[in-house]
Amino acid sequence: MDNVNTAVVGATGEVGREMVKILAERDFPAGKLKLFATEKSKGQEFSFKGESYYVDTIKEGSFKDIDIALFSIGSSPSKEIVPQAVKEGAVAIDNSNAFRMDENVPLVVPEINPRMIAEHEGIIANPNCSTIQMVMALKPIYDRAGIEKILVSTYQAVSGTGKKAVDELKQQVKDFAAGQEMKSEVYPHQIAFNALPHIDVFFENGYTKEEMKLVRETRKILADSSLAISATAVRIPVFYGHAEAVNVETSEKISIEELTRILAETDGIDVVDNPEENQYPLPTDSETNDNVMVGRIREDLANNKAFNMWIVANNLRKGAALNAVQIAEKML
Amino acid sequence: MDNVNTAVVGATGEVGREMVKILAERDFPAGKLKLFATEKSKGQEFSFKGESYYVDTIKEGSFKDIDIALFSIGSSPSKEIVPQAVKEGAVAIDNSNAFRMDENVPLVVPEINPRMIAEHEGIIANPNCSTIQMVMALKPIYDRAGIEKILVSTYQAVSGTGKKAVDELKQQVKDFAAGQEMKSEVYPHQIAFNALPHIDVFFENGYTKEEMKLVRETRKILADSSLAISATAVRIPVFYGHAEAVNVETSEKISIEELTRILAETDGIDVVDNPEENQYPLPTDSETNDNVMVGRIREDLANNKAFNMWIVANNLRKGAALNAVQIAEKML
Repeated sequence: MDNVNTAVVGATGEVGREMVKILAERDFPAGKLKLFATEKSKGQEFSFKGESYYVDTIKEGSFKDIDIALFSIGSSPSKEIVPQAVKEGAVAIDNSNAFRMDENVPLVVPEINPRMIAEHEGIIANPNCSTIQMVMALKPIYDRAGIEKILVSTYQAVSGTGKKAVDELKQQVKDFAAGQEMKSEVYPHQIAFNALPHIDVFFENGYTKEEMKLVRETRKILADSSLAISATAVRIPVFYGHAEAVNVETSEKISIEELTRILAETDGIDVVDNPEENQYPLPTDSETNDNVMVGRIREDLANNKAFNMWIVANNLRKGAALNAVQIAEKML
Repeated sequence: MDNVNTAVVGATGEVGREMVKILAERDFPAGKLKLFATEKSKGQEFSFKGESYYVDTIKEGSFKDIDIALFSIGSSPSKEIVPQAVKEGAVAIDNSNAFRMDENVPLVVPEINPRMIAEHEGIIANPNCSTIQMVMALKPIYDRAGIEKILVSTYQAVSGTGKKAVDELKQQVKDFAAGQEMKSEVYPHQIAFNALPHIDVFFENGYTKEEMKLVRETRKILADSSLAISATAVRIPVFYGHAEAVNVETSEKISIEELTRILAETDGIDVVDNPEENQYPLPTDSETNDNVMVGRIREDLANNKAFNMWIVANNLRKGAALNAVQIAEKML
């Protein structure tokens, strides 16, 4: 196939721009390419495979000739526009939280549950960034040894919040360097030189929505609705690349050597675990590596059926745009 | 008593300066005050309660008339000079790792195990910064409900490494703001906009020395040599204030309400846990609060005998200098 008419909705956002870049990088067989955003971005020019494309706004019929529409516009707009795209005949791959937990919507990481794609009824959901990189490392372990319990603490980049947050961190460090006061608008507290245990809104149970996404989405993707998992999600002053300290208790004892080999053999994972040479996954390295990096793999000293690992991935690419494009590729 | 002849060894370092400040702030009943450092800081002037003091180097007899010597000079120099101080008649309160695990050396957090102080044979060890803040929150829970297992992921400030690391982070963000290349000398990788899962040296078991300190020191302070505990220690681009995401499984089920009340009633702990108002412990708030802040207290959704909390404290003060001065106060 090389005539897949493709749309990117939210093309001017942090993730949308990556989607357009990745479609070109991976030589996605796009026929027509349509780029959509809100009124204020209308007319913006994108270059794609040497040709110019101009951002348009959504109208009735915008998706009439579209086969696949990649969405990255947030939950509320997705709830409105995704159904329009489906009604007009497109398949929507949606990066928002709007449809992820719907029973009729597959939640897909192509390396993990590609067969779910075929079960879609017009919408396929892209998981949350922090979920994708974690399940990438968990799946081969789950298949080999079973998982009793997962505990994760995240170290998340500001680009997960969007371009405004990247700009806010930049401005704060510039103000700091100039000896000026730092101002916060996007986050409720200064993010430069700080760590905020607060991502997305708080629920009544004391967890944030980001933490509950890690719980619920992991269960859905691994198709294990009672999987024991607990999470703490923290925003730190990093631009790109989420990191996660993950403790996993397996059902069956598995050696660190075997664990490392299984992870190293998994498509989409790079084991980076050579501490003597100061080599371990780093957020800054995720800017130039699309694979999920796993390192610091070591037995839990208090439980020989558990182990610790440190997982890092590019939150805009494998955590969002790349995973969405990979879903589109698998559909073809 | 108000004639306690006191020495601060390593007075010009990040922790040493805090020690001198805290002795003054708390009106410590110092008789003589002697400040020691290496040759290159000799003659540096300190103001203490309105008088001038000048930094000197250590010679034979330097501790002859000293009652209490507070040390913050790192393990190797401590191994050499602490025994001299003891031989010359002083009691040494040492902030380094040199003597912490010695059987004959009490490892003390005054709120937790003050009675150990009396058992010293000349040396009392100050625990590691990341340990102190964690055991402060663990102790009242341990006493009330018992602890089966602790899992901790840390988010540690560069000031824990020392002044050079604070300067390196400052320089990196200044270079970033000026569009210049960032250079790393103190850390093996860029620390600005990054997260390094590497604090202190690596051991053969895959853990870092910092992670093993959290394990061993916690066991010693809580006097429970088989306590199950696992740790991941991470350096993040924060100047002051260590944060920790801690999961604790108790022996007995204890409600979140009771847990919160017990922590709130503990001397030296502030419960900061009002997420609806965006109130939770923050590293930046530890710059003006000497108490250990605990928040995000919530039941582990996968285990109703476990819970999560987020602990933040000033690593230079309660994590080091303040704890040492509190030990000295308890001795009197």
